[in-house]
Formats: sequence, C-alpha cells, structure tokens
Amino acid sequence: MPDRTFGGLDPEQFRQYGKQVIDWIADYLANAERYPVLSPVKPGEVRRQLPAEPPSAPEAMDAILSDFDRVMMPGITHWNHPGFFAYFAISGSAPGILGELLSAALNVNGMLWRTSPAATECEEVVMDWLRQMLGLPPEFEGVITDTASVSTLIAVAAAREALNRRVREDGLAGRSDLPRLRMYCSEQAHSSVEKAGVVLGLGQAGVCKIPVDAEFRMRPDLLAAAIDEDRRAGWLPFCVVATVGTTSTTSIDPAPAIADICSRERLWLHVDGAYGGIAAIVPEMRQVLDGCERADSIVVNPHKWLFTPIDCSAFYTRHVDTLKRAFSLVPEYLRTAEGDVGVVKNYMDYGVQLGRRFRALKLWFVIRSYGVEGLVSHIREHCRLAREFAVWVDDDPAFERLAPVPFSTVCFRYRPDGIGDESELERLNADLIDAVNATGEAFLSHTQLSGKYTIRLAIGHIGTQEKHVARAWQLLRDLSANLRESMPAF
Amino acid sequence: MPDRTFGGLDPEQFRQYGKQVIDWIADYLANAERYPVLSPVKPGEVRRQLPAEPPSAPEAMDAILSDFDRVMMPGITHWNHPGFFAYFAISGSAPGILGELLSAALNVNGMLWRTSPAATECEEVVMDWLRQMLGLPPEFEGVITDTASVSTLIAVAAAREALNRRVREDGLAGRSDLPRLRMYCSEQAHSSVEKAGVVLGLGQAGVCKIPVDAEFRMRPDLLAAAIDEDRRAGWLPFCVVATVGTTSTTSIDPAPAIADICSRERLWLHVDGAYGGIAAIVPEMRQVLDGCERADSIVVNPHKWLFTPIDCSAFYTRHVDTLKRAFSLVPEYLRTAEGDVGVVKNYMDYGVQLGRRFRALKLWFVIRSYGVEGLVSHIREHCRLAREFAVWVDDDPAFERLAPVPFSTVCFRYRPDGIGDESELERLNADLIDAVNATGEAFLSHTQLSGKYTIRLAIGHIGTQEKHVARAWQLLRDLSANLRESMPAF
Repeated sequence: MPDRTFGGLDPEQFRQYGKQVIDWIADYLANAERYPVLSPVKPGEVRRQLPAEPPSAPEAMDAILSDFDRVMMPGITHWNHPGFFAYFAISGSAPGILGELLSAALNVNGMLWRTSPAATECEEVVMDWLRQMLGLPPEFEGVITDTASVSTLIAVAAAREALNRRVREDGLAGRSDLPRLRMYCSEQAHSSVEKAGVVLGLGQAGVCKIPVDAEFRMRPDLLAAAIDEDRRAGWLPFCVVATVGTTSTTSIDPAPAIADICSRERLWLHVDGAYGGIAAIVPEMRQVLDGCERADSIVVNPHKWLFTPIDCSAFYTRHVDTLKRAFSLVPEYLRTAEGDVGVVKNYMDYGVQLGRRFRALKLWFVIRSYGVEGLVSHIREHCRLAREFAVWVDDDPAFERLAPVPFSTVCFRYRPDGIGDESELERLNADLIDAVNATGEAFLSHTQLSGKYTIRLAIGHIGTQEKHVARAWQLLRDLSANLRESMPAF
Repeated sequence: MPDRTFGGLDPEQFRQYGKQVIDWIADYLANAERYPVLSPVKPGEVRRQLPAEPPSAPEAMDAILSDFDRVMMPGITHWNHPGFFAYFAISGSAPGILGELLSAALNVNGMLWRTSPAATECEEVVMDWLRQMLGLPPEFEGVITDTASVSTLIAVAAAREALNRRVREDGLAGRSDLPRLRMYCSEQAHSSVEKAGVVLGLGQAGVCKIPVDAEFRMRPDLLAAAIDEDRRAGWLPFCVVATVGTTSTTSIDPAPAIADICSRERLWLHVDGAYGGIAAIVPEMRQVLDGCERADSIVVNPHKWLFTPIDCSAFYTRHVDTLKRAFSLVPEYLRTAEGDVGVVKNYMDYGVQLGRRFRALKLWFVIRSYGVEGLVSHIREHCRLAREFAVWVDDDPAFERLAPVPFSTVCFRYRPDGIGDESELERLNADLIDAVNATGEAFLSHTQLSGKYTIRLAIGHIGTQEKHVARAWQLLRDLSANLRESMPAF
C-alpha cells in the first residue's frame, strides 16, 4: 500500500515541499516582472516536453517541482506581471492565495449546509459584506458561482422561469402555447450573454442586440422600440441584460432608463457588472451602479477586480425563490432534516453545479486583509492611472483615443499622419500590439470599435504602478515609430 | 497606498504566514480524525460569530488565521476524515494541494491558448494520460470542467446541437418545425442529468426516466420501448445518459446494450461515470466501462475518486467539432492569430465558462506523485474494504444488504426481527444514521431504494483504512442495539 493522503510524501516531507513552494511563490510574486508577460513559447512546445504516457510508478516531488519550473513556467502567460494590460487584468493577491490554499486543504464540497456549515454561512456573510460595499439594497441575496458566464446563465434561467410558463416542467420545444422568447443586450455586451441564450434554448436569434450610442452605451429608445416591434411580431420578450463596464470599452449602459423600460414591460433586468460593478465600492464612483438597485439580478466578479484568485463570481438576486424554482432538484440522497424544514440554505439549489468549492474563504481573507479602504484605494488608483494614460494618448497627435475612460481601461490606436486606410491601420496596430507583446514587458489585446481596430490597455493587476503604465506608453511610442519607419510607403 | 500584491503583508511576512499555513495543513491532514466528521454546529452558529459589516481597515493575518481556527473550523464537515462515508467521499491529497496552491499563485485564466500555453497543453496531455488509464480509445478528446453537473450539461448541449436542427441559431421555442425533444436516463440517474434537461430547455418532461432492474440498472428493453413509443407520440428522441456507478447504489447501466440502441436510433450516448468510471483504471475492473468506448461522450471526476482537490471534472467526447458548434462564440476581443488559423486549442470554445482555472496542474501533480500504480492500488483497496463490509452486513441477521457492491459503496439497513413496517424501519434507520453521525467518528448518508430507507456507506477517502470501516460497523451494531432497546414497542 503506498502512502495515503500525503501521496509519495510523509507529513514531514509535505511540510518541507510545501514551504519550498511558499518560498517559490514569495519570490515569484515579488519578481513577477522578471518574466515575459506573454509566454513566448510556440504551439506544441510545452506538450512536446511532457511524456505522452502517464508514469506507472510514483515520481519524486523534486522531479515534479523541477519540471514545473523547467516545462510549465516558460509556457505561462503572467497574469501576475504588473505589465499585464490585456483583456481585463486580474490579481490573486497573497491573502487570497492563503485562503485558496486552506480551501484546497479542507477540500469541502459546500453543496449542502451540513456538508460544511461554515462554507455556507461564511458565503452568506461575505456576500452580504460585498453587497454593502457595492451599495446594493438588502433585498439582494448573494451566491458565489465560479464565473460570470455561469452567473449570467443562472440569471437568464431565472428570468425564463419568472415567466411562469412551465418552462421548468415542459421545456420550450414543440409547444404551441409558447411563442419564441427574446432577451436583449447591447451589441457591446459580453459573449457570455449570447452564450447563455444559446445554452438556455433561446438561440442566437433569441438574443437581440441593441445598438449603442457614440459612447458605446445601449440606446434605451432603441431597446423600447425593439421590444414593441418584437411583441407585435409575436415574440415574448422576457429579459434585458445591461452592462456596467462592457468588455471592449468599459462603457456603462444607462441602467435607470433601462430599468424604467423593464419595469413598464415587466422584463427581468440582469446587470453584468463583472468588471465595472466592482468600482462601485469606491465612494466617488458609486454612481456607476445607479439604477442597478432596481435590477432583478446582478453579477460582479471578485476574481476580476477584487484581488481574489480565480474563480469567484458574486451573483445577487432579489428573487431567490425564482432562482431556486429554476434550479432546485433535491433527490432523496441529498435530503437533510434541516433542509426539509428550511432553516438553512443549501446552495446547491441556487444554480447549475452540485459540487461547490469553499470559495467564500478566499474572499473573506481578501476583504479582511486589505480592509474596504485598502480595496477602494487600489481601484481608485487603477482608475487614476488609466485617466493619466488617456491624457498621454490625447496629447500625442500620432495616437487617437477611441472611447471614454469611465474605469481603468483605455481604448486607442496609433494613427500617424498619412495613413487613412482602415485595413492599413488595422495591420499597423496589430503589428504594434505584437511588437509590444514581444518585448515581454507589457501585454495588450485588441477589439474592434465601429470598424476600427482598437488597442486596449486594461489596468487591473494589483501590482501595476505608474512606472508600468508609463513603460507601456514608451513602448507604444517607440515601437510605433519604428514600425512607421519600416513601412514601405513611407 | 497600501501594500500591493501581498495585501497587508510584505514578501517576508507572506513566507512566514504561508509556512505557518503549511504547518497547519500538515498537522490537519495527519490528524483529521481528531475532528468530528460531521460538524456539530447549529444553524446560524458560525454566522453569528462573524461581523455583520466588512472591516474598513486592514486586519492582521494573525487575527484572520486565528478566526479561521476559532470560527470556521468548528463549522467544517471534514471531508478529509477517514470516517467520511457519506455521499461519495472525496480526497484532496497532499500533491494535489501543492498543485492547487501553485495554480492559485499563477492565477492564470486559461481561456485562450495564449493566455497560458502551458495551461492548455498540460490539460491536453494530462487528459490524454487519464484517457489511456481509463482504456478509452484515442478518438476521445478531453477537456476539464469544474463539475460533473457542467460536464453532463455540455454533453447534452452537444447532443442537442448534433440534431442539426438549428438549435444554436433559432433556439427551441415557438418553432412549428421542431417537435418536443426527449432524452433518456435511468430512474437512478443523478439529479444533474435532469437539471441539464431543465437548463437546456427540454423541461423535466423532456427527461424520460427508464425503470431499472432488480440491481438498479437501466432496462434496455424498456429504453427501446420508450423511444419507440415517444417517436409514435411525436417526440424527437436525441440523447441517452447511461450511468456507470449511480449515486444511490453505484449500479452500472448496461452500456453495450444501450450503445446498440443509440446506434440503431441515432441517439447521442453520454456516460456519467463521475464516480464509477474512475475505477476503470484498475486493470481487473476495466470492464465497468464495457460498451462506453462506443459512447459519444463520457465524464469521470478526478475530484471524486482520483485524489484531486475539488473541482476537477474530466469530460471526453469523440465529437469535439459538435461540442464547439454548440458553444464557440469568438468575439473580436478574444480573437488571436493562432486561434484564427486553428493551430491551437482555445478551451473557452469547449463549454459554458469563459474563465478557466489551471486545473490540469493539480491533476498532473497527483498522477505523477502517486503514479498510475499508486492510484490503482488505492481504488482497489477501497473496493476490497467495501466488499468486506458487505460480508459483515450479510453475516449479521439484524442487517440487510439492499444492493450489489460493484465499487466501494454499500447500501444496507438495520432490520431487526419483529419490525416489518416500512415507516418504522425508516425512522429506526434515520435515527441510527443520526446516532452514528453524532459520534463524530463516522458520517453516513441515506437514500431510498424501492421504497426502503437505505443507509449508504461510501468508501472513497484516501486515508480510509480497514480500521475506520470496522469502527463504522461497530458503531452501527452498538448504536442499533441501543436504539432497539429504547424502542417503546420492545
């Protein structure tokens, strides 16, 4: 019989290797900027270094850790690098890592209250802490999911159930009593909204994308018109997803006007604040959630901009009973006395997944270790840095800013004199991104805005300081000049 | 500005507290049986000890860790206790914990190949290792999801897409060209199968539950009959979920016969082997997956019985293109050059969630640290212990075994002479479970089988040895005798 819980290790060896890993992490986090942000490996390069067959016999932890360093590390794109400006930067802070480590050690499945009362009750408390920090009213009850994709999926599923059309019981297909269902979001909404529509059986056609204004915000007048027109055409509108901080530009849909429409039309309003909603913890930014207090559900992601290791998504709804009606299935083997009498929450009833990690613990570590003030100051600083970067862009005639900067993300492009052709600009800016990324000092990603290829610089890593943003700007200026010079047309 | 990545800590303090946490974990894992398995706290007891409001100022890590011990620990149900026999016991082994710790530190989101090539390629390799261990053919391509609930959801979504009825584009509702869709599973299938049906818009009515034989296995003759009858009644059958190791009794549906039916009827066959499928890595148990090599998709859960910390579910399908057609949505901001030309996998295309933790790392640690032989020997031993326990039950006239024991789970009840009434037996056995659980030495859960209240003893924690199983049996015998004596009717 090989060793049990400790694998090939005994408890003393676990201590030794565990501490070695902790030392490695301390060095890594303190020096993450020594690594190239974007991994320079080529496709297949990591795979080729791994044996094609699993080992029959146990391998020594020394060998595993050494392969981790030798094979895995070169293939890591460093989300911990303060020069990570792509997508939305995230941070797993040190306190969050310790919380995650303890969760992994406890290894509880918090599906039922009794399968770890502390997991359920810590989640209730921490989610209420975050609700207060966001300034949401106490009617909002929270549950932690893994990702915003799942939070939005369960929101739309609850909205579908709120129709009271026996969707849970009878489904959607082959029913002459049920028209086609339609939900609405802006054309700038995240792909997870459309994915929720596809998964839930609405189809892509059931997700109506409302055009945006010049600042990439959903146009409520066009939303109202679309709903009217759809009703006349026999659709059954049931849900609107408003976004606070869209992925491309971090624009903020006008929630108050959208909430008016939803209330008049009796539609479920879900707010996707996965990234931007978090900023509402900053007192002078609280207005980013204006109108969202009237939503039926909202998601914000602590793993995105609250320094909590991935994954941790915070979902709130004021209609928990509807959510449970959409999801709760309690087979005999999961019945408990305390669940039957309803004195506890069994979070398995709140969504898709039965298995639930103790994710609240890391969030509890993060909020306590930073304190609300600490968290606020980081987010405030990220936004300040973004505004500063936007000024640099605005002041440089060779660059053009392409969207407002309500949070910590700046959309812009290089647009030197003499180049007006969009496809030429696209190639130039794509090359510029590649050139910056190839330095290993910064990692940028792109989007398209009104047909314009757009560079995004998204500040969100907790280690990012002014010098990192300034360095990115210097790289952009230097490398764009090089590219311009090497252009044949020049 | 407060401290950055390290929270209220500096790197040296992180080392100190990290090592303190490692020591705590080593002590905890080595002595998990000193804690009561099932937490004895009352509803609200943990919550009441936590402040109702979040702290404004940073708190010291000493205080957080001390509260963790003082407030959280009493509210933990110890899935690490070798006397955990409820539901399906799981284990987060020491090597898995180190892997999880490194994942948390790297904090990568493996949504795209480029957002950490090592995360994608390690996943490809490790999933292929596991495929080989399970004896599945190389056509099966794998992806890691969080839970079996999600793996089954994406399986059924792919099956729905495989109909080629424009479900992705047009959805299910209000379509006169689409009949009602129906999927099939046994009446012993896990609740997540029905939940997948509800989420995907089939409704509970769209999930047809086929009766089982005396050993709780799906009856293929009744499956075939149900499909026939449904076709005549205008349903569109599209998917069958067979289970290898059902939750109540761990029965094994006859996959070869079911595969015949699916192939004749052109239905997608998904195998839920979340628990039992893992046993196929044991050479003399390989036949538990007989017929499953013909499935369209299959799920097994490394976080269930392969000593990998929760969450980690391994999903395989031979129709990756169909899976991607069901899920892939690539907005501009997630396009990459290497993705566009198709030389890499972007795992975000394989399911619901965009955000993806680097879960393959812990599985890589586990498989390497134990070696296949080590993993096999643990599962073999669990099954041996269960067979031994079954013999004890069989040999005791006051107890009755209620199902075969193909894996490591035993279903039985206390049935002393003179008590024949089912409701009396239910009360007696429920009291017996409560009495055993109250000792803190073992944790059992229950199910219902053919109207009989049934005790389940599920062996799956890596630390469980013969002495723990023997102790559970001793408790069951002693406490049942006590209960019998205290019965008024006696």
